[in-house]
Amino acid sequence: MTDRFDPFPTRLKDYHQPFGRLDPIVHARNQRRWDGPLDEVALSRYERDGFLWFDGFFSHESVLPFFQELREMAEDESLMRSEQVITDPRSGAIRSVFGMHELSEHFDKLTRDPRILGMVRQLLGSEVYIHQSRINDKFGFEGSGFNWHSDFETWHAEDGMPRMRAVSASLMLTDNNEFNGPLMLIPGSHHHFVPCVGETPEQNWKDSLKSQRLGVPDKKALATLANRGGIQAPKGPAGSLLLFECNTLHASNENMSPWPRSNLFFVYNSVDNQLESPFAAPSPRPEHLGARKKTAPLTMYDDFPELSQQGVSPLR
Amino acid sequence: MTDRFDPFPTRLKDYHQPFGRLDPIVHARNQRRWDGPLDEVALSRYERDGFLWFDGFFSHESVLPFFQELREMAEDESLMRSEQVITDPRSGAIRSVFGMHELSEHFDKLTRDPRILGMVRQLLGSEVYIHQSRINDKFGFEGSGFNWHSDFETWHAEDGMPRMRAVSASLMLTDNNEFNGPLMLIPGSHHHFVPCVGETPEQNWKDSLKSQRLGVPDKKALATLANRGGIQAPKGPAGSLLLFECNTLHASNENMSPWPRSNLFFVYNSVDNQLESPFAAPSPRPEHLGARKKTAPLTMYDDFPELSQQGVSPLR
Repeated sequence: MTDRFDPFPTRLKDYHQPFGRLDPIVHARNQRRWDGPLDEVALSRYERDGFLWFDGFFSHESVLPFFQELREMAEDESLMRSEQVITDPRSGAIRSVFGMHELSEHFDKLTRDPRILGMVRQLLGSEVYIHQSRINDKFGFEGSGFNWHSDFETWHAEDGMPRMRAVSASLMLTDNNEFNGPLMLIPGSHHHFVPCVGETPEQNWKDSLKSQRLGVPDKKALATLANRGGIQAPKGPAGSLLLFECNTLHASNENMSPWPRSNLFFVYNSVDNQLESPFAAPSPRPEHLGARKKTAPLTMYDDFPELSQQGVSPLR
Repeated sequence: MTDRFDPFPTRLKDYHQPFGRLDPIVHARNQRRWDGPLDEVALSRYERDGFLWFDGFFSHESVLPFFQELREMAEDESLMRSEQVITDPRSGAIRSVFGMHELSEHFDKLTRDPRILGMVRQLLGSEVYIHQSRINDKFGFEGSGFNWHSDFETWHAEDGMPRMRAVSASLMLTDNNEFNGPLMLIPGSHHHFVPCVGETPEQNWKDSLKSQRLGVPDKKALATLANRGGIQAPKGPAGSLLLFECNTLHASNENMSPWPRSNLFFVYNSVDNQLESPFAAPSPRPEHLGARKKTAPLTMYDDFPELSQQGVSPLR
């Protein structure tokens, strides 16, 4: 930690009230260079809500091989013992696997899908790289939930991400329904930064990835934002895609159904927003949680015969 | 425990496979004496699904006084310290209050509402009494869930309820929505009895009412039933009513929203199905969990000017 000025103070000893977002949401309004597949309506909706949902973005069949590959990874004992794999605090089942795009050529290519990458560059107004990739798995009856949080809050505090200029793409590898713990978001919450109380201990991520306690906004702020914007949980078939802004508050409940829920997350960060030293943690997290070395701009992967892509038109 | 024959063995040392229900679901088919407000379509739906949902059965305004009375009870320190009140294992907030109809004349009258009592007598084919009444409260961000279970399994094992001839009426005192932990049911699950593994320890209820571990069907049985019947979570405004059969599997997830969820439950048992000694527990639970003394037939309370009642027509 340094004596840099920190525009987004968090992990504080004392309460600090929420304040308005300081950064653009769409970083490339009217910049021809970053024109992309999203139209004005979609861009405005993203600015308003902090996310866009694409029902059935890929066909169900085209994502099955990814799901299969994950199942094979679960058989790989040395991988399962590595720090990249986080297990469920209660059941011991896989909760998250990090570094997906480095474990598999398939997943690497997917991060460079021209439509996804086109939208992401358009939103961030620059070249981008993968800050983090992961799969969040919730087995039937087993997967516990994720508490409310802003990803940016963690990435800023623990990884040293300077500004709000990142976007997550979440691809559903299974159907997401009302009962298997779908992602919930608070529309409009990305317009505010909610400083959180509680100093970050050394190697906090070893616990926080199992069950997050620090970096959870206080109940009053959550209630205010949820009463203002409501809560939405986009649901749809495997192959659906969610793009959400790095500061949009989200959470998910337990999976109390027999139906597994596997969602893939690619976090894209602007090359102009590379990590510094952490703003509120003793030391940076490992490379697979926040990339510091591999930050070269992604190039599009233009040949995806196996993915029968449909139109780009967000439903929400 | 005795050497009675037990048609519904549970809390066993070893696995016992599920078997078909042995008792009627509607106990008064074609018995003029127990004619009631439910038509043939509703009765058939109850037989098929194991529950009926009445959206906005009472008006929102008419249930507000009940909600208010609950809030006042929460101020009553001696009540709060009694065994009738169960607190949340994590937050310490109120989870359940038992014996509602004895704490308040208002709630007593509500159990004898002519339409509710008419439907219940029709379903059970006899006079009825209150086996148990309770409120389940989930404060915003606080209420933890209830694991999958059949109420009958517990009432049979721990209270000595001989047969499946009871019905629960659940009245929503707040809106129930997708995010505040609504009741989930497995339609059709009441057609099967799922014996559960694990012997009941002395005073099991002191733990089980906080977080149920015993009496939870195994995952395979749950998956089979949920894949067959799906899962439904009726949602609607305060004042909505759910009638569900005593053996219908149900559960609820955590309340991750800021919106409280308060549901009132009245369990009606047939006077011809009174409690015996427990079938699978060392000793009976207290009177406020399973009535043994106050089992006189309920009489209708015919004067409810404050409740603006609408038609009786279930939506599900």
